[in-house]
Amino acid sequence: MTRIAHLAGVSVPTVSKVINGRRGSPPRPGRRIEEIIREQGYRRSEASEPTTIVEVVFQNLDSLWALEIIRGVEQVAGARGLVVAVTEMHGRLTPERGWVQEVLARRPTGVIGVSAKFTTAQYAQLASRAIPVVALDPTGEPLHRVPSVGAMNWNGGLAVARHLLELGHRRIAMINGPDELFCCRARQDGFRAALDAAGVPVDEALLRVAPLYVEGGLAEARELLRLPDRPTAIFAANDLQAMGVYRAADQADLRIPGDLSVVGFDDLQFTQWVVPALTTVRQPLFQMGATAAELVFSLAAGREPEHARVELPTTLVVRSSTGPPSSP
Amino acid sequence: MTRIAHLAGVSVPTVSKVINGRRGSPPRPGRRIEEIIREQGYRRSEASEPTTIVEVVFQNLDSLWALEIIRGVEQVAGARGLVVAVTEMHGRLTPERGWVQEVLARRPTGVIGVSAKFTTAQYAQLASRAIPVVALDPTGEPLHRVPSVGAMNWNGGLAVARHLLELGHRRIAMINGPDELFCCRARQDGFRAALDAAGVPVDEALLRVAPLYVEGGLAEARELLRLPDRPTAIFAANDLQAMGVYRAADQADLRIPGDLSVVGFDDLQFTQWVVPALTTVRQPLFQMGATAAELVFSLAAGREPEHARVELPTTLVVRSSTGPPSSP
Repeated sequence: MTRIAHLAGVSVPTVSKVINGRRGSPPRPGRRIEEIIREQGYRRSEASEPTTIVEVVFQNLDSLWALEIIRGVEQVAGARGLVVAVTEMHGRLTPERGWVQEVLARRPTGVIGVSAKFTTAQYAQLASRAIPVVALDPTGEPLHRVPSVGAMNWNGGLAVARHLLELGHRRIAMINGPDELFCCRARQDGFRAALDAAGVPVDEALLRVAPLYVEGGLAEARELLRLPDRPTAIFAANDLQAMGVYRAADQADLRIPGDLSVVGFDDLQFTQWVVPALTTVRQPLFQMGATAAELVFSLAAGREPEHARVELPTTLVVRSSTGPPSSP
Repeated sequence: MTRIAHLAGVSVPTVSKVINGRRGSPPRPGRRIEEIIREQGYRRSEASEPTTIVEVVFQNLDSLWALEIIRGVEQVAGARGLVVAVTEMHGRLTPERGWVQEVLARRPTGVIGVSAKFTTAQYAQLASRAIPVVALDPTGEPLHRVPSVGAMNWNGGLAVARHLLELGHRRIAMINGPDELFCCRARQDGFRAALDAAGVPVDEALLRVAPLYVEGGLAEARELLRLPDRPTAIFAANDLQAMGVYRAADQADLRIPGDLSVVGFDDLQFTQWVVPALTTVRQPLFQMGATAAELVFSLAAGREPEHARVELPTTLVVRSSTGPPSSP
């Protein structure tokens, strides 16, 4: 700090304010000090107080899987006597100005961004204070070169198509999420790979795109079930869409799985309670949270991770919503 | 601090350690210093750094309503640039030894205990550091005299019974949660009050008790639906139990609501997606979290709340799982 203060021509307390953050606006010479910190590097003093927080930043907390991630992070952090600090960006991808100052003031062990896009400046400020950042990104490869945790989406899509093919389905529809989400792209790529390998032609009319919500699944399933040659099975890109397919089937007076097989993705808690219980792909959100937390602790201890990207396995969970197609 | 150090015959830094907490065990003369702090009182210095955390302590994070509470607290805390720090007690009612030390080290603005039972010593330590505690207790009146936030459970039970009576039901069963939970007791009391007021006798054989999980609802509903004079409607004490009733109806080949009306309690997200969508009582968990956070800020600012207990209204949400009873 003394060295940085000398180079910046300011007092040590001013440097301390910039390094440790304060709520409200940073001191005037902040930008110059930031530059010098980046050039000179900064390491937390060994003697400094141990941190007591792991920060988790969510785009939205309204998805049920947020809870699984919090639980996973909490298990690892709690075992070390640390708490999980939760921030919601209320739909934004990038935290607001001022956010980094608040984080610096809390001096966390590290930050986990869930489908969050920090700016280059935000990454740089956290890095210059030796606060490690890990991306927990179920929706794709993060752009920045930060360590990240995801799930094997491609393999999940493959497993779904194989399961339906084995049951005897040939007209299989997929309702996918938006193309720009890499997780959805990967799920569909795996799905296509299994059909291609089995020599089953993909009918493009059966490939739909809809938002990853119940309404999206409902709207597309309604149209699919009205086709003259309707599909005998529908693979939805997430469990919410699958609930929309359930409702469309009910409205069309079709029984699941007798008249229509349905598969989801995520394995949210309610999928085992609905009638019939949903066949779905388990995305290990709890373990993804725990893994991200372990990565944070590892980085905070100065250990570089072996791999910059960790993908945890997805598992097909076969329940009661899939069965052989009824003979036409 | 100087005064307390003088009275305890220790150094100021030792008092500071006890007041502000440290991870690990407190200094030896801790107990004596605690006593003196309680006798003398302690107020945070106006000049001390503003706190940046609100602590929320959950018994369990596995219930879906935990997320709604976190979101509610986050909305109020986030608007002030504070984060929500989440701790899970993994099923315990009372935090472990050492927990208070960790909390003191984080110097939060306040603590919200969700269905948590802190010990008298834990309450005293937090109080002596001017860290306010609020109980968010959907399950009953907290024992300690701390401000608490709950929901109008009695009114919810009353609304359910009235709704079913209006539809023409007379044989109405209730699957309740454990007696020791005040929220369940209140729901059943309200339910009984409506039946009594309508002059409909309560058949004790139709009043069951089960754990507040899907399995609990399933087991009791199975028995109820096997009765020679089976109920035409079942009120489950929460949404999870109601999902168990759905499954039991499916297994008994009964249609909802044609053969059986079903009502839940909580209004968790999935209740609007299931087929048929569940009639249930909305417990305003998000608002309960927000209200608890506002109480914390109010207390931290030195304002005593007008009322020690705030109960937010519950609302009957009529969807597709209730209808008139089929004629026998």
